[in-house]
Amino acid sequence: MSLTATGRALLTMMALGAIFLIEVPLATGAPSSKATAGALMTSQTDIQDVSPALAAFIDNKLVGEVWKRPNLSPRDRSLITVSALIARNQTIDMPLEFKRALDNGVRPSELSETIFHLSFYAGWPNALGAVGVAKGVFAERGIGPDQLPAVSPQLLSMDPEAERTRAARVQADVGPVSQGLVDYTGSVLFHSLWLRPDLKPRDRSLVTLSALIAAGQSAQIPFHLSKAMDNGLSRTQASEVLTHLAFYVGWPNAMSAVPVMKTVFDSRPNSSAPK
Amino acid sequence: MSLTATGRALLTMMALGAIFLIEVPLATGAPSSKATAGALMTSQTDIQDVSPALAAFIDNKLVGEVWKRPNLSPRDRSLITVSALIARNQTIDMPLEFKRALDNGVRPSELSETIFHLSFYAGWPNALGAVGVAKGVFAERGIGPDQLPAVSPQLLSMDPEAERTRAARVQADVGPVSQGLVDYTGSVLFHSLWLRPDLKPRDRSLVTLSALIAAGQSAQIPFHLSKAMDNGLSRTQASEVLTHLAFYVGWPNAMSAVPVMKTVFDSRPNSSAPK
Amino acid sequence: MSLTATGRALLTMMALGAIFLIEVPLATGAPSSKATAGALMTSQTDIQDVSPALAAFIDNKLVGEVWKRPNLSPRDRSLITVSALIARNQTIDMPLEFKRALDNGVRPSELSETIFHLSFYAGWPNALGAVGVAKGVFAERGIGPDQLPAVSPQLLSMDPEAERTRAARVQADVGPVSQGLVDYTGSVLFHSLWLRPDLKPRDRSLVTLSALIAAGQSAQIPFHLSKAMDNGLSRTQASEVLTHLAFYVGWPNAMSAVPVMKTVFDSRPNSSAPK
Repeated sequence: MSLTATGRALLTMMALGAIFLIEVPLATGAPSSKATAGALMTSQTDIQDVSPALAAFIDNKLVGEVWKRPNLSPRDRSLITVSALIARNQTIDMPLEFKRALDNGVRPSELSETIFHLSFYAGWPNALGAVGVAKGVFAERGIGPDQLPAVSPQLLSMDPEAERTRAARVQADVGPVSQGLVDYTGSVLFHSLWLRPDLKPRDRSLVTLSALIAAGQSAQIPFHLSKAMDNGLSRTQASEVLTHLAFYVGWPNAMSAVPVMKTVFDSRPNSSAPK
Repeated sequence: MSLTATGRALLTMMALGAIFLIEVPLATGAPSSKATAGALMTSQTDIQDVSPALAAFIDNKLVGEVWKRPNLSPRDRSLITVSALIARNQTIDMPLEFKRALDNGVRPSELSETIFHLSFYAGWPNALGAVGVAKGVFAERGIGPDQLPAVSPQLLSMDPEAERTRAARVQADVGPVSQGLVDYTGSVLFHSLWLRPDLKPRDRSLVTLSALIAAGQSAQIPFHLSKAMDNGLSRTQASEVLTHLAFYVGWPNAMSAVPVMKTVFDSRPNSSAPK
Repeated sequence: MSLTATGRALLTMMALGAIFLIEVPLATGAPSSKATAGALMTSQTDIQDVSPALAAFIDNKLVGEVWKRPNLSPRDRSLITVSALIARNQTIDMPLEFKRALDNGVRPSELSETIFHLSFYAGWPNALGAVGVAKGVFAERGIGPDQLPAVSPQLLSMDPEAERTRAARVQADVGPVSQGLVDYTGSVLFHSLWLRPDLKPRDRSLVTLSALIAAGQSAQIPFHLSKAMDNGLSRTQASEVLTHLAFYVGWPNAMSAVPVMKTVFDSRPNSSAPK
């Protein structure tokens, strides 16, 4: 089959995920990137043409209110939103949210590392979808290899006590079912991925927690919410993660996370109550 | 990057979701819309070329039998199917099912409102995928803004007693974890969305229940199945929702809904037994 | 809307899923199909441009190690991987994995039958996405109708005792909720699909188990893991399925399967312990 130059350009753009369904105003007042990408975007009038109520809701409530709520910075909200999209493999919305993340102060190295991190917590086919989009965004913004995390950086130091506890628990719980899974959980995740310096442990936890809530993975929330709070995420912030995500992953996923999050909060009586 | 007119038209069509994987006969005998969309459709022979057994199953069993079963009208089956696709973000199948829904008597305002409703119950990125498809279908059928629900219509009246009960329960269950989620559940969902008149409460419940089963959200089914039955969905109809959905969302999701649905049925001894 | 020949060719290719995000080396050393599909592929340098760590991981760990682990053949790993992609509707990665499956010894009739099987265990919209991809791969490889399973083949014989037990349990559990679901579970699944000869019962179980783990359907794992072991899947193999899938469906889905798999293993004391 022979393709014209147009055809090949289109296929390349599709592979790069450069099909922007919608442009909504940036929460932070940063200038929109319409100039570069406008030709491919569907304007917000598309939502207007199908559901004026949804268009008004996005303007007034989501962008105009939720993103501006206290307790989480726009940067944190971008990390949370990007993680939810990757966890749910929603490539259509990624170009806008990846750019918004960079505009909100997420560093290119952090976005790159978030994708690498979620290749393990959402599966690597999900990471590949995000790679296609990020490549286009990085190219558009002139982000080169010098801004990306190294393959084998100097790792952060490990807390040997916490790691002994974790390893013992995984060996006890998972060992009788799959020693391979035990081994890779140690070597690939906790002795390597979690110690990479390009995403702070608190942010790595925020990304993981967001992906778990987004995918309805309640059973894995207790361990990772505890770890997130150990890593510096406050109870107030964790509460607000849930509020923000309800809009991006739907009420049912948010509500299903409530009882397991409550268990963790109750087990840490010294954590401040949510406002 | 410069695109030819062909290229831009293609990208627009992609953004509109106008890529029809398959055309199956309409369940209701309404004329197929091949004349308008045929150029873009992959014919049913594609299924034949990969799995003749699947092609025969769709003709004989799914279209020829399941859609014609009693206890749910084709219109209800369309609402259920559309909700399942939106909940699972399956945009490829949406053009056919959105048109089938209109042919089966779902009003444009109801389809629009279903998308708005599911922006909260499946997350708004899922709603955006549906918006892209619906825009194309609405344009093709000449459906204009006068047929869409208003941004701020006169709301239905609320049952104050039921709302007090709901609000108290959510405050007790969710309040200790996220007051923000409690507040938006009240203001955005139950004091606004659920009272909008363009989708009857029974249909809103049908859409919600279908989305929950489709996404495997068993934990949220008890509240919404009870509400659906309060809103007029019979036990026989709820049973048939599950039978229909098994084919669209897979047996495991249907089977996982069974025990929680049984709990609700058992708690309402006066509801008629399923036939 | 009028399309040029280029436009129509592109749309056909999109419908066929012929957009290859990435080409990774084949695990088995079989020659890559770059010659035929190279024009459409995004090279592995895309991953390098976004996350060099992910590119290194895929080369060294996933392809270089995981796929070569003992206890499961490359053919089994391909069946597992393909099932996970279909269960999660990840069409972008399907072209590569469908070809790799054929290269690893999965017969065309087995791939076709896997898609048909998963139309019931993942929902038929998921099967349709796979059909689009498989059609392109079959066409490229000259695989014709004579290599596909018949619509109504001579069925395998049923174990009447096991079937009586299954039917009684489903009637007791599901009957009070949906007799339609009970009836189709018998007539469509266990008296027909599971008896079709083009996928061995052990492989059918492997495909089902993989899809359940991939979709986080823990509640349905006990029945199907038991059935898989009855059908010849060893405990060691089932353990390795989980290790392999962790990389393709994410750690949370793998970890959520652990306790239910342990219950099944514990209930079969004579099964060999995992190595």
